[in-house]
Amino acid sequence: EVGMRKYHRKYATLWLLVLVSLPVCISVCRASSPQEDSAMENIVTEKKAEESHRQDSADLLIFILLLTLTILTIWLFKHRRFRFLHETGLAMIYGLIVGVILRYGIHVPRDVSNITLNCQVNASPATLLVNVSGKFYEYTLKGEINANEVNDVQDNEMLRKVTFDPEVFFNILLPPIIFHAGYSLKRRHFFRNMGSILAYAFLGTVISCFIIGLLMYGCVTLMKQVGQLGGDFFFTDCLFFGAIVSATDPVTVLAIFNELQVDVDLYALLFGESVLNDAVAVVLSSSIVAYQPEGDNSHTFEVMALLKSFGIFLGVFSGSFALGVATGIVTALISFFLRDFQLLETALFFLMSWSTFLLAEACGFTGVVAVLFCGITQAHYTYNNLSPESQDRTKQLFELLNFLAENFIFSYMGLTLFTFQNHVFNPMFIVGAFVALFIGRAANIYPLSFLLNLGRRNKIRSNFQHMMMFAGLRGAMTFALSIRDTATYARQMMFSTTLLVVFFTVWICGGGTTQMLSCQRIRVGVDSDQDNSISVGEGSERRSTKQESAWLFRIWYNFDHNYLKPILTHSGPPLTATLPPCCGPLARFLTSPQAFENECQLKDDDSDLILRDGDISLTYGDITVSTDASGAHTSGGLAFAGASTSDDLDRELAYGDHELVMRGTRLVLPMDDSEPSFTEPHHRMRM
Amino acid sequence: EVGMRKYHRKYATLWLLVLVSLPVCISVCRASSPQEDSAMENIVTEKKAEESHRQDSADLLIFILLLTLTILTIWLFKHRRFRFLHETGLAMIYGLIVGVILRYGIHVPRDVSNITLNCQVNASPATLLVNVSGKFYEYTLKGEINANEVNDVQDNEMLRKVTFDPEVFFNILLPPIIFHAGYSLKRRHFFRNMGSILAYAFLGTVISCFIIGLLMYGCVTLMKQVGQLGGDFFFTDCLFFGAIVSATDPVTVLAIFNELQVDVDLYALLFGESVLNDAVAVVLSSSIVAYQPEGDNSHTFEVMALLKSFGIFLGVFSGSFALGVATGIVTALISFFLRDFQLLETALFFLMSWSTFLLAEACGFTGVVAVLFCGITQAHYTYNNLSPESQDRTKQLFELLNFLAENFIFSYMGLTLFTFQNHVFNPMFIVGAFVALFIGRAANIYPLSFLLNLGRRNKIRSNFQHMMMFAGLRGAMTFALSIRDTATYARQMMFSTTLLVVFFTVWICGGGTTQMLSCQRIRVGVDSDQDNSISVGEGSERRSTKQESAWLFRIWYNFDHNYLKPILTHSGPPLTATLPPCCGPLARFLTSPQAFENECQLKDDDSDLILRDGDISLTYGDITVSTDASGAHTSGGLAFAGASTSDDLDRELAYGDHELVMRGTRLVLPMDDSEPSFTEPHHRMRM
Repeated sequence: EVGMRKYHRKYATLWLLVLVSLPVCISVCRASSPQEDSAMENIVTEKKAEESHRQDSADLLIFILLLTLTILTIWLFKHRRFRFLHETGLAMIYGLIVGVILRYGIHVPRDVSNITLNCQVNASPATLLVNVSGKFYEYTLKGEINANEVNDVQDNEMLRKVTFDPEVFFNILLPPIIFHAGYSLKRRHFFRNMGSILAYAFLGTVISCFIIGLLMYGCVTLMKQVGQLGGDFFFTDCLFFGAIVSATDPVTVLAIFNELQVDVDLYALLFGESVLNDAVAVVLSSSIVAYQPEGDNSHTFEVMALLKSFGIFLGVFSGSFALGVATGIVTALISFFLRDFQLLETALFFLMSWSTFLLAEACGFTGVVAVLFCGITQAHYTYNNLSPESQDRTKQLFELLNFLAENFIFSYMGLTLFTFQNHVFNPMFIVGAFVALFIGRAANIYPLSFLLNLGRRNKIRSNFQHMMMFAGLRGAMTFALSIRDTATYARQMMFSTTLLVVFFTVWICGGGTTQMLSCQRIRVGVDSDQDNSISVGEGSERRSTKQESAWLFRIWYNFDHNYLKPILTHSGPPLTATLPPCCGPLARFLTSPQAFENECQLKDDDSDLILRDGDISLTYGDITVSTDASGAHTSGGLAFAGASTSDDLDRELAYGDHELVMRGTRLVLPMDDSEPSFTEPHHRMRM
Repeated sequence: EVGMRKYHRKYATLWLLVLVSLPVCISVCRASSPQEDSAMENIVTEKKAEESHRQDSADLLIFILLLTLTILTIWLFKHRRFRFLHETGLAMIYGLIVGVILRYGIHVPRDVSNITLNCQVNASPATLLVNVSGKFYEYTLKGEINANEVNDVQDNEMLRKVTFDPEVFFNILLPPIIFHAGYSLKRRHFFRNMGSILAYAFLGTVISCFIIGLLMYGCVTLMKQVGQLGGDFFFTDCLFFGAIVSATDPVTVLAIFNELQVDVDLYALLFGESVLNDAVAVVLSSSIVAYQPEGDNSHTFEVMALLKSFGIFLGVFSGSFALGVATGIVTALISFFLRDFQLLETALFFLMSWSTFLLAEACGFTGVVAVLFCGITQAHYTYNNLSPESQDRTKQLFELLNFLAENFIFSYMGLTLFTFQNHVFNPMFIVGAFVALFIGRAANIYPLSFLLNLGRRNKIRSNFQHMMMFAGLRGAMTFALSIRDTATYARQMMFSTTLLVVFFTVWICGGGTTQMLSCQRIRVGVDSDQDNSISVGEGSERRSTKQESAWLFRIWYNFDHNYLKPILTHSGPPLTATLPPCCGPLARFLTSPQAFENECQLKDDDSDLILRDGDISLTYGDITVSTDASGAHTSGGLAFAGASTSDDLDRELAYGDHELVMRGTRLVLPMDDSEPSFTEPHHRMRM
């Protein structure tokens, strides 16, 4: 091992040299084609087009090399166990550097071929036909341009080239990230803390949005009075800002949590909240945009418009939710039969998940929200129907897509700080935003935690609350939402401020996670599979499960476990056991033959689990859950629908995760898998 | 040639191409302006943009559902062991059906918002600024439109919407297909038949191109005389047609070969030829386009222009080749160190392979050709440096991409038969094309096989020749090349004819493969791992190895095995053994510590191989290669550079494939893996 490292160092210069020489190659290789005097028009146009194509390829190559560089540096960091800077922070730094180079380092000669013509027409159709000396050329609308930017259009050709259409982020890069978040949700701990997570994500995001909105409105009013404001900034703009910065993205913190194996409940709370509040923030911001009172007073308060916005929020959210779940269930049903053919399974899984996004967009719902719930459904049902190889494949595929998309977004963030041409940095607004963000996050976490603790047995302790407060990072979603529309002064100021907020939280908060953890004395090194046995030491905390999983959730769980799982997947008890006897033939028809086999399997696995975690039963203080309960459980599946559901539920959720380990050839825990693949087991041991 | 290429290349920013039908104009249109009177106008624009975005999502959804349907039907076919129709043929049929529905079934109301304006300017810049009552709108050039199509632009909005930019095929869909072909090349059998493969691919493609071009020129001349020709059709057009239809794509046949386990040499010949002749055809066609004699006589013969075309062919081909190999080697060097982190490895592999394409395009070479050789290099070097999980991951990733891209292209082919609006079906030309294709293929296979058989010991038997003749299918590459430019009458006629050729070969030739195999009495059920022992029964045929691997190849092989492999990968003999003693320190510096460990490993594996396949040594009739040779071989690696190279070579190539089996947890033979994943082992047994 030591020899290997020395060897790596020896080679370090070699491959860095090779890498650096790559971009140099580009410029050298760009041989200008021989000039021909025969100025045939089409040849010239062809040359122009070819030149432009080359330029585009070179521009994209910059991003690819940026990502490659990021990967190499990440590797170096991982290798040296340097945990101070997360890969996304790194990607941002590289993006910044390239942005600076593009902005100040490269002088692009003005493109002569790109002369802009003005012609007076009285509408702006999507397609324009231009008659050039008898030939017709088709033009498509790209968008409106501010009058004062007209001259920039030609001047900043280079900067414009590396600027992507903002919708790329929303339609290409976010979906895999969000889907991966849903697909890798650790369902066991998610469901156990579901009440709290929903409270933080829904109530908390709305609270945070309005608190930040109000504070920013105060700030903006103040700015107007001291003459710092250069344009309009309405209350709806403030609320919009509140909504977009309420989408937390603790990817940095979670990566460190995962590496250090922080308490699983804290992890579940943070991850669950961040996944769901992205969805809430997207829908919330689009509802705020939709708030447009009619008539003259277009920026005043109006009840009808507010109700309409609220209706839109509910409609879009539930619609997206329903679509995502529906596609997930359809995929589960299809993959029920496809088991033998891995490539087909994987391809189908990918296509169906993508079609959720497109379907939602086509219906006017929000694609990313639909994709999130589709991911959760796929993990809950479809995953069980896939062959072990396809389980691996799909996990790995979305892990890779997530990794690439995330690093791309963050490096683009760095780049855009210098290449975006309409930045409005207003110091007062920026300071106000940071203060508002802080207060907004606090107003989300502390009051809600207090209220939740009234109902929770497993209290969210104050150090957990501080940690959640601290880990309220902003990331990809906030960026994508803010870059989507940068047409007005208000939106430009928001975008610039958002960028700074993301930089600050990723670098400062992300970098300080380990310090914060030790400062708050939060236990690390908790093995998620054995957290049950660890919690024994903490006495009655474990009882929380029953407490938190309220009656609504229990009913849902029973329904899911007894009917949905057996119908949609190969796992779960056979329907013949769960349905009333009168439905016998139907039950036999719907139950997969494997479910019957599974039952024996289930018994074994279950009793195995009980035997191994024998001491867990101690934690269920008030009910006698031990071998007796498991005996009852295994005796025909009646216990599933019976009275002792709450511990069944917990065990089943635990079992759900276990099942994955047993099926796959390698460890594929939904979430453990996402990061540990970086660190080999023996690396972990040494930490 | 009218400059329609501008049209094709203009859009080439790859990210935007991915977006294909997602709207470009949404974001900037969403400007909410403070003015009261313009507020309503903005809302209208927003609505319009949203509507267009929905429509685009729905259009893309059509394709996704088409692919899903194809997958489901393939599954049904696989399940029922129905081997008559390949998945690509199926995808085409579904595409055809959807095309018919779109063309005749759906009446799209004329889009009122899309009124086209004519304005007179005297140039066609890439960007156009339109001044609409004080506001500036930016338009980008989409391309030229024929005067007689101007009215169609509005009428066929729906058909235009489902029509992709032709460059999508070349820049998005072909690269993964071609890379996968290179990456899954079964190197052992490929290298063994390398001479023949190169002859078929280079000489054969050129012969076929010129024969077809000449025949078509005759056909076209005849058509002109009987008045069947409705436009210009020059000799260069004929040659271009010859080049594009010379790219064979026997994906259908190879899938069946793989399933039935047809003779590996036949497989290697067909696959190797098809992989390489795609590259040759691409470069050849672009060289023919570049053949433009100066002055008035622009379509006559001119030596200088011919030489220039030939120079371009050589330059582009060798440049693309060098770039591809270089990137592959850089990736190998980098992945040499990244071994511990699977996700990073996979991401890096993907990014580097993609950057090959971009780099080649940016330098003016051909991306797909570079990607092909990059794939082969990655398989040869990088693959050995990857961890077993990453080997699986990369294989599976590109397998999936290949599957999706291929089926997408073929279903688009079906669709385009009805939705393409400038079809020119000329019966005479079509019949002429089929005859020319048949003769061209025959002129490629039979004379070359005769010549090759003079030098080969392992003759290419006549039934193999007939099979190769029969399997000269046209596919994705031919389609992508022909749809790239459909501006002139000649190109439109070519495109329509090409489409029919592809349909015919995929359905008729592809469907008749099993019949053809049994008719030609070609042995099936040959296990590729045991073909050595089977060939024992056929006597001296196996000697061919030495014969075919000519001195040039042997020199290359020795250099590769002794120096490149040890430097670039963790496998191979340590450099200390292969370099002269004077280079000792350098050799120790460059050799991976694993290589030293490997040597012991190597010995074991090798002797294991020898022991297990003891009878193989019988086949090396004229040299004594048995335990003695292997003893010499293992005693310090001297034998590697020694005299008994030819069998070493063979064994090493064999070993190269074997190694994969031993390293990975599951069977990852470069090519066996691509298809067998469809069929479970027990399915095979039953066949």
